[in-house]
Amino acid sequence: MFPVGFGRLSGTGERTLTARPKSRRRNRRPVRTPSAIKQLPWGALRNPFTPIELLSADQVEAIHHASLRILRDMGLEFMSAEALDVLRREGAEVDRDTQIVKFDPDLVEEFVSKAPSEFEMVSRNRDRNLKFGGNNLIFSLVSSPPNVSDLDNGRRPGTYEDQCNLIRLMHSLNTVHMAGITPVEAMDLPVNSRHLDLVHAYLTLSDRVFSARAIGRERITDAIDMACIAGGITRDELVTQPGVYTNININSPRRVDNELLTGMMEMMAYRQPVAVTPFTLAGAMSPVTLVGSLTQQNAEALGVLAFSQMHSPGTPVIYGGFTSNVDMKSGSPAFGTPEYVKGTIAGGQLARRYRLPYRSSNVNAANSVDAQSAYESQMALWANIMGGVNIVWHGAGWLEGGLTSSFEKVIIDADNLQMMSEIMRPMIVDESTLGLQAIEEAGIGGHFFGTAHTIERYENAFYEPMVSDWRNFESWEEAGSPSAAEHANRIWKQLLAEYEPPAMSPDRREALDEFVARRKDEIGEQTW
Amino acid sequence: MFPVGFGRLSGTGERTLTARPKSRRRNRRPVRTPSAIKQLPWGALRNPFTPIELLSADQVEAIHHASLRILRDMGLEFMSAEALDVLRREGAEVDRDTQIVKFDPDLVEEFVSKAPSEFEMVSRNRDRNLKFGGNNLIFSLVSSPPNVSDLDNGRRPGTYEDQCNLIRLMHSLNTVHMAGITPVEAMDLPVNSRHLDLVHAYLTLSDRVFSARAIGRERITDAIDMACIAGGITRDELVTQPGVYTNININSPRRVDNELLTGMMEMMAYRQPVAVTPFTLAGAMSPVTLVGSLTQQNAEALGVLAFSQMHSPGTPVIYGGFTSNVDMKSGSPAFGTPEYVKGTIAGGQLARRYRLPYRSSNVNAANSVDAQSAYESQMALWANIMGGVNIVWHGAGWLEGGLTSSFEKVIIDADNLQMMSEIMRPMIVDESTLGLQAIEEAGIGGHFFGTAHTIERYENAFYEPMVSDWRNFESWEEAGSPSAAEHANRIWKQLLAEYEPPAMSPDRREALDEFVARRKDEIGEQTW
Repeated sequence: MFPVGFGRLSGTGERTLTARPKSRRRNRRPVRTPSAIKQLPWGALRNPFTPIELLSADQVEAIHHASLRILRDMGLEFMSAEALDVLRREGAEVDRDTQIVKFDPDLVEEFVSKAPSEFEMVSRNRDRNLKFGGNNLIFSLVSSPPNVSDLDNGRRPGTYEDQCNLIRLMHSLNTVHMAGITPVEAMDLPVNSRHLDLVHAYLTLSDRVFSARAIGRERITDAIDMACIAGGITRDELVTQPGVYTNININSPRRVDNELLTGMMEMMAYRQPVAVTPFTLAGAMSPVTLVGSLTQQNAEALGVLAFSQMHSPGTPVIYGGFTSNVDMKSGSPAFGTPEYVKGTIAGGQLARRYRLPYRSSNVNAANSVDAQSAYESQMALWANIMGGVNIVWHGAGWLEGGLTSSFEKVIIDADNLQMMSEIMRPMIVDESTLGLQAIEEAGIGGHFFGTAHTIERYENAFYEPMVSDWRNFESWEEAGSPSAAEHANRIWKQLLAEYEPPAMSPDRREALDEFVARRKDEIGEQTW
Repeated sequence: MFPVGFGRLSGTGERTLTARPKSRRRNRRPVRTPSAIKQLPWGALRNPFTPIELLSADQVEAIHHASLRILRDMGLEFMSAEALDVLRREGAEVDRDTQIVKFDPDLVEEFVSKAPSEFEMVSRNRDRNLKFGGNNLIFSLVSSPPNVSDLDNGRRPGTYEDQCNLIRLMHSLNTVHMAGITPVEAMDLPVNSRHLDLVHAYLTLSDRVFSARAIGRERITDAIDMACIAGGITRDELVTQPGVYTNININSPRRVDNELLTGMMEMMAYRQPVAVTPFTLAGAMSPVTLVGSLTQQNAEALGVLAFSQMHSPGTPVIYGGFTSNVDMKSGSPAFGTPEYVKGTIAGGQLARRYRLPYRSSNVNAANSVDAQSAYESQMALWANIMGGVNIVWHGAGWLEGGLTSSFEKVIIDADNLQMMSEIMRPMIVDESTLGLQAIEEAGIGGHFFGTAHTIERYENAFYEPMVSDWRNFESWEEAGSPSAAEHANRIWKQLLAEYEPPAMSPDRREALDEFVARRKDEIGEQTW
């Protein structure tokens, strides 16, 4: 039942501290039948940690006031006549020729304060509903790379098949709570109707909260109608129970384009949540100082968030942070850097100043699933956790600065997200966990493998990773020296092989199919 | 001067957000002559973050009191007559036959409170002195693996040459502040005199604070004498300015062997700092519950720390935490796990309860420098930072659960330690960093590459990693798709090629050489 090859580990300097059992093979217990990968159960997460405060309260105020100066003196460009009408109506200073909108500081604060601090999104499976804001914590699947990669076929443009497989993986992974806008672009589908196939895949292959792309009106209304069909609800019901999420990126510096604004307004017309994320890569689209980039991020976010509440007071919105830096030698964006960590943590202080749900991301700039991809992602993930982020966008699968969705990275990230969940689980201190009886039973110089305390608990005592290989070097080498990426490759294939789609009533499925077919007819296929 | 291949990055869903310059080669600035690897300067670190509190104050007290119950009712075994004399003299309940010592709770608290909260260690280069305790933060080189590995020659038993090269690397890396006990065992040197060659290498190839192995008396007195020669001081002066560090591992559960106690007492006779680290791998050497393991860790640490202050009141000691878990399927130790993170963070709460400097480690259980090695190490590192650790033992280079020192891992860890230092650097918010003029100058939809604000700052604006590869995929692929481990391989070779030993006066050098020669004669070579 317990390993016997486990020798006495003693000495100084920890020299021999990790003498692993050499003859593991001889002594190991029967291998479990390869079946479902062991995971933590689905569960809503709350972040119990007090966020790090990188900025003093005075510094937060200084950035806040500087942001308001930008909005008052320089303004933002809103490239939509409809948006300009709303802004003018609610008191902003609108220049119709330049489309530049300037905001009185009080106006900004007044409208931003109308946004809710917390809200809930519903999925067609009510057990998968998600709470946003407060100390709720949500991990999403990677969103919107054009390329996909895996160890077998390398990096290539994404296809519908890849998109579906990534959605199946999300559905199979308990710690990936919601979908981004698309797990990868389906480059093999017609451009003007692929959103229909994507939403159809989200709704039939998974039961998670999903997102839609807010470019223009049509994609949003299609997603809304499809969410209603899948959930068996009306548009009016959806208004009170948001079921479609989106993220829009401001075209930093200080511009919001027409298509984005139109999509955003369509979302807000149905009171669906919109994350507003300035695209502030320090040195390129925002000042080379991190503080300057955060100031611009904050100005852009506040301006557009104020607009959201002018358009639809009380509509749920999210403060999005994406501030990172570029490599000043090449211009390449950098992610998972010290600057990214600081930007994410300080951004959280700003988001909380406005009592808004906060979105950041699990990012890295590596080109392969190597050590760099892992340490940059872990740095970003800790920044999210210690920054009080509510929505960890791109939670699993992002590679190459967001240009590629990696099947292996989905698995490694999911394992890391699970470990973070486990770290956040409260500790229980009582007579049973203190374990004094076990300490007495083991005796001096003994071991605990056979104590009653261990026997009662060993099966679920510790987190069991999906990916990490803890075999001793010799066994690992005999097995072909597999890397973490190779383990992940095996795991995603097993998850796909074992995948089962969530149940959907035949009439809803039929209605969804019909909707997609009808809309494709109306749109007419167009391939660029 | 600035990259021009950097296209407009806009859109929603961040689909195109990371469109990197495709034609980087055409536009890049002249490559700097490959010379010294860019690093952050040497600098004492202070951790500005408030530690995470995983345990409530009541839970800390519950563990504290349970630990005292263990010491009162079960006791620890001290396998040294000399130590037993000290313990009996100061009021502990000593059984000479079983060597079991039981402690009255008040006695433990009384003596533990005599240990200093902070102290300083001197190096032969006074600019490399280190402060311990408070919020001081020190990163050490990996300590004591029997094996070494690099990409060229794989994993093999360590040699004196490897040992020297790892010391040269430490000396070349500004963020590796001190040496462990040995960077790798020199298996090619005679066992009973290799400590002389090691300390000689520490003192001539580097100028960092170093450690010695506390097994018996002789190794310690040799290290103390050599530190005195190198520093040009007497033994009496060393007593007031500690210059030799050590770590001892308690042979958990509840045993301290004679050789360790003898080495420890020799250290304390000269008032040199001793870290006391119970070897509590949950499920094997301590209860399968993390809380139980922490309780045993705390009991063992308190008992031996109380002994230290009975032996030499006020001598500097360090509360060491090493609680992790074993894989209950194989018995293999696991590191960089959720349990390790929680153990490290909660351990910090205990160490601070006693106002003692706190030691934990940067650990992982991977067999190669892959993604696993990186995410486990990053998790451990964040646990150290958010747990208020003062001495991050095994800071750079540890692989395979401590059985191997990896040259590539030294570099990747050093880069990660540097990034952590950068994250902890305070943010400055003033008119210059807020950058409003740059935001005005860049204009709407413009870019910041050419603004005066950027030009003044771009060269040192951001952390420049040693290892991370931020080239676009095409350039990276053209360069042979190097992994982070391959970059690290290139870097350690370059650092060794550029290595220059620190200055040492010829007379001190000669005295050191003579000391080693004389002691080897006295000892007589013995090869097991």
